[in-house]
Amino acid sequence: MDPESFLDLANQVTKLKMYPYFDLAHAALCCLAVKEDLSVGSQPFSRKHPLSLWASSMLVIFSGGILANLLLGEPVLAPLKANNQLLLSTVVWYLVFYSPFDVGFKFFKFLPVKIVCSALKEVYRAKKVHDGVTHAAKLFPNAYVIMIAVGAIKGNGAGFIKVGERLFRGVWTPTAMEFLVPNFSTKASMLAALVFVVDKKTDLISAPHALVYFGIVLFFVYFKLSSLLLGITDPFVPFENLFCAVFMGGLFDVIQETFYGKPKTEENGEVAKPKAE
Amino acid sequence: MDPESFLDLANQVTKLKMYPYFDLAHAALCCLAVKEDLSVGSQPFSRKHPLSLWASSMLVIFSGGILANLLLGEPVLAPLKANNQLLLSTVVWYLVFYSPFDVGFKFFKFLPVKIVCSALKEVYRAKKVHDGVTHAAKLFPNAYVIMIAVGAIKGNGAGFIKVGERLFRGVWTPTAMEFLVPNFSTKASMLAALVFVVDKKTDLISAPHALVYFGIVLFFVYFKLSSLLLGITDPFVPFENLFCAVFMGGLFDVIQETFYGKPKTEENGEVAKPKAE
Amino acid sequence: MDPESFLDLANQVTKLKMYPYFDLAHAALCCLAVKEDLSVGSQPFSRKHPLSLWASSMLVIFSGGILANLLLGEPVLAPLKANNQLLLSTVVWYLVFYSPFDVGFKFFKFLPVKIVCSALKEVYRAKKVHDGVTHAAKLFPNAYVIMIAVGAIKGNGAGFIKVGERLFRGVWTPTAMEFLVPNFSTKASMLAALVFVVDKKTDLISAPHALVYFGIVLFFVYFKLSSLLLGITDPFVPFENLFCAVFMGGLFDVIQETFYGKPKTEENGEVAKPKAE
Repeated sequence: MDPESFLDLANQVTKLKMYPYFDLAHAALCCLAVKEDLSVGSQPFSRKHPLSLWASSMLVIFSGGILANLLLGEPVLAPLKANNQLLLSTVVWYLVFYSPFDVGFKFFKFLPVKIVCSALKEVYRAKKVHDGVTHAAKLFPNAYVIMIAVGAIKGNGAGFIKVGERLFRGVWTPTAMEFLVPNFSTKASMLAALVFVVDKKTDLISAPHALVYFGIVLFFVYFKLSSLLLGITDPFVPFENLFCAVFMGGLFDVIQETFYGKPKTEENGEVAKPKAE
Repeated sequence: MDPESFLDLANQVTKLKMYPYFDLAHAALCCLAVKEDLSVGSQPFSRKHPLSLWASSMLVIFSGGILANLLLGEPVLAPLKANNQLLLSTVVWYLVFYSPFDVGFKFFKFLPVKIVCSALKEVYRAKKVHDGVTHAAKLFPNAYVIMIAVGAIKGNGAGFIKVGERLFRGVWTPTAMEFLVPNFSTKASMLAALVFVVDKKTDLISAPHALVYFGIVLFFVYFKLSSLLLGITDPFVPFENLFCAVFMGGLFDVIQETFYGKPKTEENGEVAKPKAE
Repeated sequence: MDPESFLDLANQVTKLKMYPYFDLAHAALCCLAVKEDLSVGSQPFSRKHPLSLWASSMLVIFSGGILANLLLGEPVLAPLKANNQLLLSTVVWYLVFYSPFDVGFKFFKFLPVKIVCSALKEVYRAKKVHDGVTHAAKLFPNAYVIMIAVGAIKGNGAGFIKVGERLFRGVWTPTAMEFLVPNFSTKASMLAALVFVVDKKTDLISAPHALVYFGIVLFFVYFKLSSLLLGITDPFVPFENLFCAVFMGGLFDVIQETFYGKPKTEENGEVAKPKAE
């Protein structure tokens, strides 16, 4: 593949229209996730509480935009103004939860379909991270942390909204906070947001913008497919462990233990409850 | 009653001033609801935690505006800027919770007073639904779902804020989410918001706007009084059951059971807990 | 001290730059508070969940601005745009949680250092209350309650955000709501906000603005140091008790008991649970 046509391809990717195929794939995977979160309870729950289920599914589907708008002081409901996208999402939601003989669920769960949807969704994610960074950069031109945070939240809104989305279904799981154990999508979105910020704000990356964008898309799609097909869940783990061992107390703790012995607090290994309860 | 004077009456209703009588009735019923939610604990709680009680009562009284502003990206505290209304609400709150011999509570609880207050509150609700739809339509002229959502939330803010209001009093009841089992006021507000949207955005309703508004007011008042006096709690239930039977899986489930027998998940009848807990 | 130079000093205090010393003291005390809230679990938690710990620490450090922006409809993340302050806070956070042999924590915990930090933080608090009142007054010139609320929340954001901050660490303590048992800082911030509102909106206070501001600073610092050194925790308690006895039912309850005897609800002394659970 010659560089010219490669750059052409990259340019095309940056200008992809998201509606309807990418929106459809995103909505389908979000509804699958909600249904799997409900596990065996999804059948009775969907029959008894359709409004709650619809609201929580839409919350997941539009989570990136909703959270980003909340954090940037813009109308929280604004993502719902795209009537086409909302209608498409509702149709997908209906198919996944209410189609006869569960065909909708089984269709989207069918591995080849799921793989295509996942690939499309990762392209969508790259676009959302990029949009988030650009949006935050317009409001706060020098606030790098805000750009990365908004990019990561737009990229993996479903993770950050999980606690709230379950609350919409009457279930409260405070330990499911995304910050505690960020999953791969969150970390990848943070990294992608960082790359976009570096690309936008510094001269460190000399490649054209379209190539950077295309690289992020390829990175997202590649690792998603690896995770689905090969079971590689998180390629960041070794780097994290190294980073934690060097900077987050690992080394110092070893030195300290050499001098003073193991502290008692590590025996229980559990996070202690705060006093006021 | 001749049509001319009926239309005149309808026009008058659309221009009713809400302050002070309607605001008073609304505040009184909200404080009653908070007091009844506390049940036997209201006496000791009101003596020990007046600030928490005041904050949660104000949250309920101004819930519609607070939630709508949050969702539309406007100052959340803005509804509190009406000093008169806030003072009136505080006086009502004081009378309900702290008057000697509980006369304030008993007065507003006295059936004739309660009926008058309820009727006034329903007129107030119709106005708030209308304001919510108009406000949302100004921001997002084509976002029908946002209009209906904001209308419903302004109309029955107390229902949507219940979980948060209890949290202000240190009580956490995630299963009290309004989405799970929406009460009559929520459904009626949604229906009214839908009617206002249809009236505003299409030509399907040929009646003058004042008549549509007046019809909604009558509908709200009529069913509230039915509920108070005759015990008719929810006239929507038969329609909902029909709708659920046709569209929300009822029919398909019966067909499916004919072929495959009852699924196991319905035996327990309970919503399963999510995995991460 | 002659009045001239006293006024000069007061004027200087109103113009103090907060960065870097006051910001440093504030960040250090916030991180100490988070570490103490984790108690014995802080060591394993900081090693296992650094992202969650960083997010919750930053949430506490910037809580005043974050909450005030949320309530006033401005970008919630805006306080994070000050890169210098964020970097400083992160360095302090790192020192408190990850420095070898816990020297960072022990340094800030060392009484003389802690006293200096506390004094600086109280100056910072006075400035934040003033900023909050000014900000709210610009948006809502006549909304006295909003001014006081925003002033109090900016002044003691850490108290109001405690429930949310613990949630960031996966811990849920609904009974830790600041409204239930407001601590001294909250009450002092409310009083200071009230004084600023009276000073700004009425002619009741004839002293120059700088003197009022300086008086608030002295009041904050004096009571903080009293609390640290002499163990005086809350000088408001007697006034509150008096106020509650007169206005919040105390007197009426006594009269009522004289007539009807003690109500049964006070026997258990506990707040009853709401019905829906």
